[in-house]
Amino acid sequence: MWTPCGRADGNANSPRQSQFALDDLIDIPTDFSLYSTALKKFSQGMERPMYRNFRIVPNIIFGRGSFNQLDDVLKDRRVTADSWMVFVVDDVFTGKPLEGRFPLRGRDLLLWVNVDDEPKTRYIDELVARIRAYSPTAPAGIAGIGGGSAMDIAKAVSLMLNNPGSSADYQGWDLIKNPAVYHVAVPTLAGTGAEISRTTILTGPEKKLGINSDYTLYDQILLDPELLAGVPKNQWFYTGMDCYIHDVESLNGTFINEFSKAYGEKSRDLCREVFLDDSPAKDDKLMMASYFGGMSIAYSQVGACHALSYGLSYVLGIHHGVGCCIAFDQLEEIYPEGVQEFRQMMEKHDIPLPRNLTKDLDSASMEKMVTTALNLVPLWENCLGPDWANIMTRERAMELYKKM
Amino acid sequence: MWTPCGRADGNANSPRQSQFALDDLIDIPTDFSLYSTALKKFSQGMERPMYRNFRIVPNIIFGRGSFNQLDDVLKDRRVTADSWMVFVVDDVFTGKPLEGRFPLRGRDLLLWVNVDDEPKTRYIDELVARIRAYSPTAPAGIAGIGGGSAMDIAKAVSLMLNNPGSSADYQGWDLIKNPAVYHVAVPTLAGTGAEISRTTILTGPEKKLGINSDYTLYDQILLDPELLAGVPKNQWFYTGMDCYIHDVESLNGTFINEFSKAYGEKSRDLCREVFLDDSPAKDDKLMMASYFGGMSIAYSQVGACHALSYGLSYVLGIHHGVGCCIAFDQLEEIYPEGVQEFRQMMEKHDIPLPRNLTKDLDSASMEKMVTTALNLVPLWENCLGPDWANIMTRERAMELYKKM
Repeated sequence: MWTPCGRADGNANSPRQSQFALDDLIDIPTDFSLYSTALKKFSQGMERPMYRNFRIVPNIIFGRGSFNQLDDVLKDRRVTADSWMVFVVDDVFTGKPLEGRFPLRGRDLLLWVNVDDEPKTRYIDELVARIRAYSPTAPAGIAGIGGGSAMDIAKAVSLMLNNPGSSADYQGWDLIKNPAVYHVAVPTLAGTGAEISRTTILTGPEKKLGINSDYTLYDQILLDPELLAGVPKNQWFYTGMDCYIHDVESLNGTFINEFSKAYGEKSRDLCREVFLDDSPAKDDKLMMASYFGGMSIAYSQVGACHALSYGLSYVLGIHHGVGCCIAFDQLEEIYPEGVQEFRQMMEKHDIPLPRNLTKDLDSASMEKMVTTALNLVPLWENCLGPDWANIMTRERAMELYKKM
Repeated sequence: MWTPCGRADGNANSPRQSQFALDDLIDIPTDFSLYSTALKKFSQGMERPMYRNFRIVPNIIFGRGSFNQLDDVLKDRRVTADSWMVFVVDDVFTGKPLEGRFPLRGRDLLLWVNVDDEPKTRYIDELVARIRAYSPTAPAGIAGIGGGSAMDIAKAVSLMLNNPGSSADYQGWDLIKNPAVYHVAVPTLAGTGAEISRTTILTGPEKKLGINSDYTLYDQILLDPELLAGVPKNQWFYTGMDCYIHDVESLNGTFINEFSKAYGEKSRDLCREVFLDDSPAKDDKLMMASYFGGMSIAYSQVGACHALSYGLSYVLGIHHGVGCCIAFDQLEEIYPEGVQEFRQMMEKHDIPLPRNLTKDLDSASMEKMVTTALNLVPLWENCLGPDWANIMTRERAMELYKKM
């Protein structure tokens, strides 16, 4: 159950740390009104602080080479002779050594997915139709292998195999009626937290919004740091920064409590070991940083950087990780220490940032970006407090975008 | 499923970090042979490292005052008009303000339990008989409210309501056949990690050994730091040190990997904030330290201190927390920094340690303590490496006990 924590009126007497727990909002640039409705529904008549009942992926395997155990994990689900699995895999692995290691058995289906664009509801519906056409019986399990987008696709497919209609019908909070097909995540990129989140972000015909539900959550994650070995450097960095920036935003926010702080602080410390100290165990540490960053979301929220990056994604189609880096680089006034450390990390790894992205943008598009960013009220409130609108004016947001 | 990680032969070519994952052993002083058998069963024919599939309590509520939400949590389980709950509560709360806050409804049963002695199988069987006599239908849920022993009793009762025979029949690994009744933990002491562990330690007619299974694990934990407020100082300290010492032992051990390290390091850092820095949020932080300490067990192991403290518990009946403190104080050679910091913590809080416990003990009892401690091979191997038996001789262990 999605349960906002506390009252929506910003009453100073209620614990600030408990007012919002909107992991669901993190990747939702557009549909704030839907969120507001859900919040109001739950907050009516609340007279005492309430805390979110946080659901966690209940099974974890961690270790170098643990990918070899995927077969064992799936074996427990192959209860009849007819049981079969679907491997939902990022097509970047076509022809790569990993392809030869997928534990396909019997009638298992290998489904390559393309994530050049962020996942769309139409694409999910097509994949589900292909799986249904392949077999009259449902698969016994889905393994999602890849980065955040591939893991999100596998989540959405698992849900839609057991729920009628289009995935677009379920964008929102707790609209899913039936549990998903059993699904396992095997991340090959670290930083997004998709392996542990209860949402799958989809672009639909009417909105970009996640399917948020406890059923969305994976049943099992398998964290094998060896799988990070072949990631291109820039992608490794941008995705890792999604995690680092998220930690900085939540730790500097007003909603944080000691649960989220413990996870957020350790996640940030691990990012430092990875991106500044060049730890020999850096792949292992980045996997843990991503997992801890996702766990820290329980009772915290992101802030100014994620809000601004949504504007970039919505209007310019910029991918989430690099969008966060572009926005964060302009936020020294809000996160002085974080931005300084982020620049050290960029310099150390010689990472370029796209520049002058908004130079030729017309005024209507610029206004749309500002509106998208400022609509994300809880992010700004977490960052700047209840008086945020007087601090982050439209003019100031516009100035920030002009520098990107 | 309980799955030891890696080979039992101590082969130096297999990753040391993955060889054992014996959370189940942590509180088992006597029955090492049963453990060895289980380990051999799983390790036969393994040719590559294998990592434990770690099961986690899937639902968490954390926050000051969240005890008020216990009613909401249980409400979801009251599916029929006849649904009823059992509150298993440490009798130290009789007549205390907390008693008035138990959300009892309808036919709910309040079951006070006494934990002056560590839980016995006979006691569990009696409690189960009382619950069965109370109603012909099984309860819809069990809430365990108290410290480690009360939480362990609630776990055992939840298991035994759905499994025939005596609880003594199930002491061991994965002997439980049927899932437990839904059970929720509400810790009122922090440090043991019982809220997150997959065992419930029981003293039976033949052995002291946990009921180890994934079914033992709680379905939900509710962490309300306000509940720590009334704990007597010494008990607060000894229980907290169970967590701190466990962190020191696993972080200094040879089995550790980056999953367990991330949790163990943060748990130790939190203990420092609680016991050295006197953080204003110390109750919140100690609850998180205990939870993180429990999570760190996934791929680590305790060491010399826990091994020696089992000898004290087995022969002298000394409670686990204080037993760990007594043993740790003698282990400066093995854990120099940890013991030094521990003494700072004791001094800061003016905590006394029982002394001269073994002064009047006969030689047979002394030998029994040494044997109990040295039988815990994986703890010593984690601590001192494969050559441990030449380092921790019977004579050296005897010398250590004589100083306690």
